[in-house]
Amino acid sequence: MSKYWSDFVHHLEPYVPGEQPKMDKLVKLNTNEHPLGPSPKVIEAIRGEVDDRLRLYPDPDSSQLKQAIADYYSGLGYGIKRSQVFVGNGSDEVLAHLFMGFFKQHQPLLFPDITYSFYKVYCGLYQIDYQPVPLDDALGIAVDDYLEGDKPRANGGIIFPNPNAPTGKLLPLSEIERLLQANTQTLVVIDEAYIDFAGPQGQGGATAIALVNRYPNLLVTQTLSKSRSLAGLRIGLAIGDGALIDGLNRIKDSFNSYPLDRLAIAAGVAAFKDQEWFEKGCEQVIMQREWLNEQLGQRGFESLPSAANFLFTRHEQHSGLSLAQGLREQGIIVRHFGKPERIADYLRITIGTPEQNQALIVALDGLISKWKNAG
Amino acid sequence: MSKYWSDFVHHLEPYVPGEQPKMDKLVKLNTNEHPLGPSPKVIEAIRGEVDDRLRLYPDPDSSQLKQAIADYYSGLGYGIKRSQVFVGNGSDEVLAHLFMGFFKQHQPLLFPDITYSFYKVYCGLYQIDYQPVPLDDALGIAVDDYLEGDKPRANGGIIFPNPNAPTGKLLPLSEIERLLQANTQTLVVIDEAYIDFAGPQGQGGATAIALVNRYPNLLVTQTLSKSRSLAGLRIGLAIGDGALIDGLNRIKDSFNSYPLDRLAIAAGVAAFKDQEWFEKGCEQVIMQREWLNEQLGQRGFESLPSAANFLFTRHEQHSGLSLAQGLREQGIIVRHFGKPERIADYLRITIGTPEQNQALIVALDGLISKWKNAG
Repeated sequence: MSKYWSDFVHHLEPYVPGEQPKMDKLVKLNTNEHPLGPSPKVIEAIRGEVDDRLRLYPDPDSSQLKQAIADYYSGLGYGIKRSQVFVGNGSDEVLAHLFMGFFKQHQPLLFPDITYSFYKVYCGLYQIDYQPVPLDDALGIAVDDYLEGDKPRANGGIIFPNPNAPTGKLLPLSEIERLLQANTQTLVVIDEAYIDFAGPQGQGGATAIALVNRYPNLLVTQTLSKSRSLAGLRIGLAIGDGALIDGLNRIKDSFNSYPLDRLAIAAGVAAFKDQEWFEKGCEQVIMQREWLNEQLGQRGFESLPSAANFLFTRHEQHSGLSLAQGLREQGIIVRHFGKPERIADYLRITIGTPEQNQALIVALDGLISKWKNAG
Repeated sequence: MSKYWSDFVHHLEPYVPGEQPKMDKLVKLNTNEHPLGPSPKVIEAIRGEVDDRLRLYPDPDSSQLKQAIADYYSGLGYGIKRSQVFVGNGSDEVLAHLFMGFFKQHQPLLFPDITYSFYKVYCGLYQIDYQPVPLDDALGIAVDDYLEGDKPRANGGIIFPNPNAPTGKLLPLSEIERLLQANTQTLVVIDEAYIDFAGPQGQGGATAIALVNRYPNLLVTQTLSKSRSLAGLRIGLAIGDGALIDGLNRIKDSFNSYPLDRLAIAAGVAAFKDQEWFEKGCEQVIMQREWLNEQLGQRGFESLPSAANFLFTRHEQHSGLSLAQGLREQGIIVRHFGKPERIADYLRITIGTPEQNQALIVALDGLISKWKNAG
């Protein structure tokens, strides 16, 4: 508390990110990082930029990176121009700018009651009115809950992740299109942090970028922190109609001329050019996800169908809290949100390397048999 | 223009940064970058981090960097704790957060009429009322213009750079302290992007960080883009009372958990540890500034006394516009703002390498003699 703060700062409830422990030797399955290191070509591209040129400002427009992203999605047949791409210092910055730039409206923003918990933090920061829309009984997003018949519910915008976090459940593109056909007067943002794990592997098959040239009110955000294994750098992007990108640029140019540094720009360009590494990485994660899902199922866990690089899972007998604590004592960190009530017993477990996933199963076997003997 | 924008976006007037030309072989003296590349120890530190660990998120608190900064200033005798340090993705991000976090008040923010032009952009972004305070006749900041007798003028905060930009003029610490003694009820921010060029060389002699432990309403910002030659990364900082830093953290944690990437953190730590490179770099810039000032003076230029890594200068006969254009035709880029009227004929010329500064003088000689012969 300080009398020098702007009034609203007293009421902020900041986001709490997953723990980034400083100890080594932990099995870290709590923040959905990629199990593999980034593409060797990315590493090479960064090393090639670490020299005296760091004295110079980066390109404020990150043009090369925008072009590489446009080329990548145009290669998938979506016809994306550079002027339809926005980049930021991680997708959280991109989201912050778009909340400010688009969602300060006279009607409430709609998003799921169980979703990325940063959304309500942005609403607090920019004093945006919002209304949570409950997930359905199977913890899925139901498009009909955003509609009243074939009309949209009154809203100043709609945002949700696809696949949703922390559930991992995917909404098919046809359902997103149904929403866009009904909701034409306000912005719809699809936050695709995890879309590349939805399959078909690395082919962009599930991305709503396929729709942006038909719906001028659709904006799609992505990150290089997950499927491109660059959480340690900070690169996020948005793709949509040029007028939406113009709006984001106006915010960005009123906030920070140079959000991406020279090394991040070089890394991002290389990441979008190494299709082979990208596809193999996504495939490995998906295969391990299926393996882990099966193993957990054999041990009394029920997991939601996941299209992401994590499983959202609960045990038929043991509480989420006791499982998270028990794993932690064995050096394995998973994410346990604890609230709201409906997800209190769920754990969100990142798909790790085969060795890490194996270690998780061994630790769970140990825990469960210990509790069985104690009970 | 788009109907999907928040209303205020239509009225934004974004900042226009100095050009970052994509051509090589230009003598680039327009954005105040350091003439030398960064410390070799910084280069080494970055290279040591470019590996598989980039798959992992950075430390959201950037603790090691904060500690290195606190240690550096404590080593100068200022007793700065880690909890008194805030870091961001360039000092522009730090400034944006502090405008939002501190300057949304019921009285107008005060800053000089001729100063860093991003200030009024932030006011537009966050809808902050402000009142420009004219520089005095010698284009200096006069503390008395922020006071009414020994009372402060009504204000919701005060901010100015020291040395001021684009004038380069330094306000002595005693004058800043006089302002702080009168103005105790609102925040005072001293934006020290260029302070390290004020001398005594690299000793921190002129920084208001010396005062933060005595004035809880004083916040000092700095950047690693100038005196530490890291414009190509994006690292800025603020130092002040813990309660001010808490306020900034609340904004940051409501905006982006991880503003600094792993490579920037490593680079920043190494930069604050290499005192020898830092002092030599500042000394070279200061020596070249004095040389250039003298050379310009011999050619009919009048420069303001500069404590920064640039000169703000005008010619007795030739307009700023014609000089900037004439230099550009010879491949030398300097910054010409053109407005307001009082500075229409001034050029802001970054201190380059000895070779660049020499090339500038040769080009000016050519231009002036060409115009003389033509006239």
